[in-house]
Formats: sequence, C-alpha cells, structure tokens
Amino acid sequence: MALLMIPMTCFGSILATFQPCQTPDDFVAATSPGHIMIGGLFAIHEKMLSSEDYPRRPEIQKCVGFEISIFLQALAMIHSIEMINNSPLLSGVTLGYEIYDTCTEVTVAMAAALRFLSKLNCSREMVEFKCDYSSYMPRVKAVIGAGYSEITMAVSRMLNLQLMPQVSYESTAEILSDKIRFPSFLRTVPSDFYQTKAMAHLIQKSGWNWIGIIATDDDYGRLALNTFAVQTTANNVCIAFKEVLPAFLSDDTLEVRINETLEKIIAEAQVNVIVVFLRQSHVFNLFSKAIERNINKIWIASDNWSTATKITTIPNVKKIGKVVGFAFRRGNMSSFHSFLQHLHIFPSENNKALHEYAMLLSACAHVKNSDLSQCIANHSQGTLAYKANEDMEKNFSLRNDFLWDYTEPGLVHSIQLAVLALGYAIRDLCQARDCQNPYAFQPWEVLTHTSEKIPLQSFLSLL
Amino acid sequence: MALLMIPMTCFGSILATFQPCQTPDDFVAATSPGHIMIGGLFAIHEKMLSSEDYPRRPEIQKCVGFEISIFLQALAMIHSIEMINNSPLLSGVTLGYEIYDTCTEVTVAMAAALRFLSKLNCSREMVEFKCDYSSYMPRVKAVIGAGYSEITMAVSRMLNLQLMPQVSYESTAEILSDKIRFPSFLRTVPSDFYQTKAMAHLIQKSGWNWIGIIATDDDYGRLALNTFAVQTTANNVCIAFKEVLPAFLSDDTLEVRINETLEKIIAEAQVNVIVVFLRQSHVFNLFSKAIERNINKIWIASDNWSTATKITTIPNVKKIGKVVGFAFRRGNMSSFHSFLQHLHIFPSENNKALHEYAMLLSACAHVKNSDLSQCIANHSQGTLAYKANEDMEKNFSLRNDFLWDYTEPGLVHSIQLAVLALGYAIRDLCQARDCQNPYAFQPWEVLTHTSEKIPLQSFLSLL
Repeated sequence: MALLMIPMTCFGSILATFQPCQTPDDFVAATSPGHIMIGGLFAIHEKMLSSEDYPRRPEIQKCVGFEISIFLQALAMIHSIEMINNSPLLSGVTLGYEIYDTCTEVTVAMAAALRFLSKLNCSREMVEFKCDYSSYMPRVKAVIGAGYSEITMAVSRMLNLQLMPQVSYESTAEILSDKIRFPSFLRTVPSDFYQTKAMAHLIQKSGWNWIGIIATDDDYGRLALNTFAVQTTANNVCIAFKEVLPAFLSDDTLEVRINETLEKIIAEAQVNVIVVFLRQSHVFNLFSKAIERNINKIWIASDNWSTATKITTIPNVKKIGKVVGFAFRRGNMSSFHSFLQHLHIFPSENNKALHEYAMLLSACAHVKNSDLSQCIANHSQGTLAYKANEDMEKNFSLRNDFLWDYTEPGLVHSIQLAVLALGYAIRDLCQARDCQNPYAFQPWEVLTHTSEKIPLQSFLSLL
Repeated sequence: MALLMIPMTCFGSILATFQPCQTPDDFVAATSPGHIMIGGLFAIHEKMLSSEDYPRRPEIQKCVGFEISIFLQALAMIHSIEMINNSPLLSGVTLGYEIYDTCTEVTVAMAAALRFLSKLNCSREMVEFKCDYSSYMPRVKAVIGAGYSEITMAVSRMLNLQLMPQVSYESTAEILSDKIRFPSFLRTVPSDFYQTKAMAHLIQKSGWNWIGIIATDDDYGRLALNTFAVQTTANNVCIAFKEVLPAFLSDDTLEVRINETLEKIIAEAQVNVIVVFLRQSHVFNLFSKAIERNINKIWIASDNWSTATKITTIPNVKKIGKVVGFAFRRGNMSSFHSFLQHLHIFPSENNKALHEYAMLLSACAHVKNSDLSQCIANHSQGTLAYKANEDMEKNFSLRNDFLWDYTEPGLVHSIQLAVLALGYAIRDLCQARDCQNPYAFQPWEVLTHTSEKIPLQSFLSLL
C-alpha cells in the first residue's frame, strides 16, 4: 500500500474539507488512479443540510453526521481494489476508484451517477446524449453501490442508459432482482425474499404467534414489510401492528413518529416480539428512547443493523431485551484487519473521507474509546467548531482499533465479493485486449461477463 | 393554428419514421419553437422492441404499439400551449414544446430527461455536471409528465438535480406527494389516497363485503393496492384475493399471470366485486379473455381506465358485467374538439407522432371506424408492411371524429391545467424580465411560482 503520511497543521485547509462542493473534484470522497476506473457509492454522512435560502436552489449542500460504519465500507472497497492490484489477477492492469458520498440523499447519488456517466478525458464534465451508447466511453467502467435500496434503484435507472454494471453490497430489496427494470444491476447479498422467509420460519418455529413490525417508509422497508407480512400470515402468525417511520433524518415528523411507535408498543403489551426493518440510525434513536421507557422485548433484526456496533454501544442497551438477528455470511477478515492496522492519512485531496475522520479524531483527542463514537457524531453535526493540531496523525494512528471495533464482517465480505466479481469479469474481457488503454472496452461489455456465475468465495483466498 | 398540409407520397420517407433513433433529433416525437421551451413525456407507444443482439447493447430501440388515447394526450398538451400562445396571457412571449415518447419504458424516459437537462444552445447535446445548477440553463424550463407513476418517479429523481418543475397530468401514486423525495414535482390530479378512500366508501355503502383486487406490479399498482387494502380492512370488508400482474408488456409471464388471475376469479365464485388498478392495455387483455370465459362481475375502475374508449370498444364488452369507475373532473371540451376537427398534418419532422398516426390511417384506409383501433394496433406492431399513397391526407382528414371518440375529457382537462399552471407561473416571473430572451430565468425559479395556489379552473375559460 502506497499511502503517504502528511502532517497537517494548517487550520485553513482543515476547515475547507467541511465546505460544500464547489468544483466537481470537491465532490469526490476518495479517488486513486488506475487503468480501469470503478465508481463507488457510500452514504458516509447521514444527511445533507438543507439550504437556508428561500427559494431553494439546486445545489449540493454540506453533509453532516459522519457514519463510521459506512466510512469503513468505503475503506473495504479501497482495500479490495488494492488486493486485486497487488495480486496477479489482472496481470499489470490496475483498477482505480472514484468514491462518492451520497449523504443518504437520492439527489446527491444521482449527481454522482451523472459524473460516472460523463465522458472520459473530456475537458469539461459532460454526459452526452446519445441514441446509442455502444461506443461511448464514460469516466468509469462499473459502479459498486449503493447501500440503501432506494438510492440504488434511483441510480440504477440512470446507469441503465449506458447499461453500466452496478454491483450492490447491501441493497436487498426484492424488486432489484427484476431484470426488466434493472438490467445492469447485480448484487452480492440475497434478496429480502429469502431473509423475510427465514424470519417467518424462525417466528413460527419459536411459537411466537403475535408480533409487531416496524419499517422505514422507503423502497426497502415497504417492500420488506409486505413480503414478510404475506409470509407470516401464511404461517398463521398474527400481526398486531405495522409501524412505518419516515426514511429521511431531515423529515421533521421522525421524532414524533418514533414516540408514537413507542406508545403503540407500550399499549400492545401482549406483543413480545417485534420485527425491525430499519436503518441503523433509526434503530439507534428508537432503542435509545425505548430504554428510557423501560421497554423490554424480543427484537428480530434485519441484516442492515444486526451486526452494527453503533447499536451495541448504546448506553444500557442490554435493558432493551433480546435481539435475534440475521446477518450476511462473513469471510476471512485478516487482510482487512491488517489494512486497518496500517492505515495512515492519504494525501487529503485523494481521500477526503479519511481526512475528515482524522480531523474528527483530533477534535475528540481526549475522549476515551467508548465515548468516541458519540464525540464524533456530535462534532460532525456541523454545530461545533474545533481546532486541529499537529497531534492529529498521532491520535489517528492510536485509534486504529476503534475502526476495527466498528467493522461489520458480513458487509466487508460482501464488498470484497462485489469488487472481485468485477475483477474477474475484467480479467475475462482483457484476455484479448490491451486493457492498459482506457478505451479498450465499454461498460456494457463488462456486464456480459459479470452475469456469469463465478465461484467467488473460493477465489477470495487466492488474492 | 399555423399547421401546414404537406402531401406525402414518398415510400422511403414514410418508412423512415418507423426506424429507431439515430440522431438526438430523431428522438423527439413533436416539437415547436418558442421563447420558453416546455418538455413533455407521453407513452405514445406501448412498448420498445427488445434488441435481438446478444450481448444486449445500450441503445434506444424501435417502439411499437401506437396508443391512440395517449397520442391524444400529447395533442392536448400541444393544444393547451397553442391556447396560451393565442391568448394575451404572456404578452408576446411564446411557449414552445419538445415532446418525447417514453414507449412506456423508464430508460427511454430517462434519456428524454437527460435531453431536457442538456445545455441550451450548445453545439453538442450535453448535460454538464455541476455542484450548483443555480445559474445553469438547460434546453427546457419545465416538464409536463409523465403519465405512469413509475416513470414519473424515476424521471423526477433526475430532474431534481436542477430542481426543474415537473407537472404530471396523470400520476396518482401517493408517494409523489412527498416533498422531501420529490421537491420539484407537482400534479393536477389527486393522490390515490383520495381515490382509494372513495372506492372503500363506495364499497362499504353498497354493502359489498367480499371483494378481489387486481393491480399492476409497479409503483402505482403496489402502492394503490396497499392503501386501498388498509382502508377497506378498516371498513370490515374482506379481501378474498389480491392478484398482481407484471407491469411491462415485454414481460413473458404476463399472459400466464392473466390466465391464472382469471382462474382465481372463477375459483372464488362468491366474489362479485373486483377492484382493478391496471393500465388500459392490461385491462384490455384481461377483459378480452374474461369475456371468452363468460366471467360476469361488478368491476371497480380506477381513473386510468375508467373512461378509456379502448375498453368500451372490446367486442361483446357488455358481457363483462357492470363497471363502476372513478374519473377526473372534466372541463369544457369545445376548444379541444375544434382543434381536433381542424387538425392537419404538421411538417413531418416537427410532429412524428402525428405523421405516424397519418400513416397508420392510410394503411387502414378501407377499414370502418369501429374496426380502426384494432387495425391501427395490428399495423403498429411492426410486423405488417404496408404502403402509403397520395390518399393519406384525405383519409386522415376524414377520420377526425375517430380521434374525438378516443378523447378522455378528464385527462385533457388535467393536461390543460398542467400547462396553464406553468403559464401562470411564467407570467408572474416575466413581469419584471424580458422573457423573449431564453436566458431570462432558470427552471428552479419557475418552481417558486408554480407552488402557489392559483384558481386555475376559473382561468381556463379566459383563454
């Protein structure tokens, strides 16, 4: 790994990374050159601030709420690409990456998708309109992401224009399996059809016949809730309540709806088992308040929060009751562990997300590990000012174990598989072409190779 | 109306309009210049042919299945714009239009949206990537459409990038009211929340307590089915079955699923009332087969097929039973009637849809009006060859009443309101600017004026 250590003491340059996007390059969260560029979409911040201007203007705003677990997913993509580049798989051809922070906003992700589709090596960042994109060459050859199904679906509609392969590491919404709607979409996680079936089976076998369901009001939550409700009803399990929470943290009614949901749970006292299809930040809010109200239940966790450190570090979380979760299969984590142990600061223009993490650590320099997550969350709300100092690099190095604590092995494995699937497809394509030339092939050609079934699990150990 | 009559006898040029898109301009269904350009999205063809190439390439294919009722919607938009241009509303500023045929395909609509967002007066058709689109000037200032909710939603995600106002005349999906997700979306039809409530009320008041539901598997059908199911269950009405049909005609399983649905209806003989949230072409297929099987029920029609001539002209349609429908409010149709009566062929490069209609009429020259719809459907499947001749214009003029028979007054009214809403917003904006200059204002500025509540109904009569 060729990572540079650069001491950063300039206060001005540190604040600059927290400013909203001014030029297209500001918008990139992390990038590294390569013969073949791969795009990445990760919700590294939990929301975009709304503009205070009226009327609202069409501009990308500042993002707040740094999500350590999702930052780690972006690192997993970088690590997987480095693994391939350091292996003989592509025989001298290197993969580069261009990772964007969606800020958990569809519109921001659409802007990133627009940039993925823009013309390669063009002096201006432009997507050309074409009736036929067969010989059009965009900036990237394939996209890893996004995480949230709703964002993945919206982006996929746009990437379809050029049949650009898109591999999600986390989007489980059943509808994404529909090849008529999403012809260029692939994923390394199973559809919710299977997860909800497993949950329904667990509930039936455990003799629980009276349950509640809580889901987010987005394409993921609504679809999962429906599929699950059909499956449990078929098993003669009764659903006492279905509560749907607003999907976006920027929605003012979220807090009220969480309180109403807790009141519902208290009112339906005979319901002991609650199935939760929510995002991590929603579960965090729900559980924090449920503990205050002494609610103690059996909670069935969907994959997207079942292994989240963010949840396990909620103060007094044990009082919430039992959590039974479904999680993705995990792989060998030793290589990623070592990557995190040796992680240093990249040149800040190449990895703004890492740079922001370093600054947040610096601001929380005197906080102990168990309170670090909360300190980072507070400092990344854009409300507190803080000063960086020359200890930043030192503090940063000291906390590599903290990142490891927040790592979700199932997701890291899923991201490794996604990158590897692209790596193998590219290897096949490049057998008869000189892929050091960025014009060697078009994105839609990758798609014909990624759709073949490759036993990726067994190849992972070879890298 | 300055419409030219051009005799067309050249066989070569006639076939050319049936070819797929070769240049960006081929892709436009109808256009007319103006100081302020408005985009339009209509599903004039019912599907896009799939390419026979393997691997599939990212190109816009030929569209087949000419939909007269939707072609009429595009004409209603043209007529509404002409009404405004012929009125004193914008005092010398003219509206132009650029209408695209989505071919009932999200990807085709996304391509059209890309063109809407591309830079004004640029030698090449390019959408520039920007962090801030506040001072970016795209080709069009606002978009009318689309019809189908799923297409409208996907397009809206893209138009959000520039906060371009989008006014739908037909998309009723409840989620489109969500201003966090769809900040630049407006519509002139009520959300399904109200329609499903009215249906549930009708069913309860009629004493029907045992019903079936059939919906399309798309954002419209699934959401309407859910909302409706919640409302009827609250009224103690039992739902015997919920059948969901594939949304796309290109889906091979559609015919099988229609047959299964009919078998379900026959098996559940005690269910006399069936609520149908389907597209017109699906209802057409379902009813045609139901009549063959002697199924006779009470059908509750959603707005999108309740007034469709396509359905009322199915042979022996009376055998299907009773249809109780919900429809949009209609307005005064005399002006549109007169527009249709005086409709002639535009220069073919300006209105390809009208040109195609004229050719289809020519091919069906010797068919009587009652069989014309079927003849047009057969000829627009791309399977039959036919010759145009110099009688085309004559045949065409003779059949203006046929178009009138297919007109859905509620939709025409809704399209008039959509165009008028934009007209009034533009009038307000242009009071202090010279709007004959296409750079006078940006699309997001229109949005701040369209969101005001204007009593449009009463203004319609003034035009």
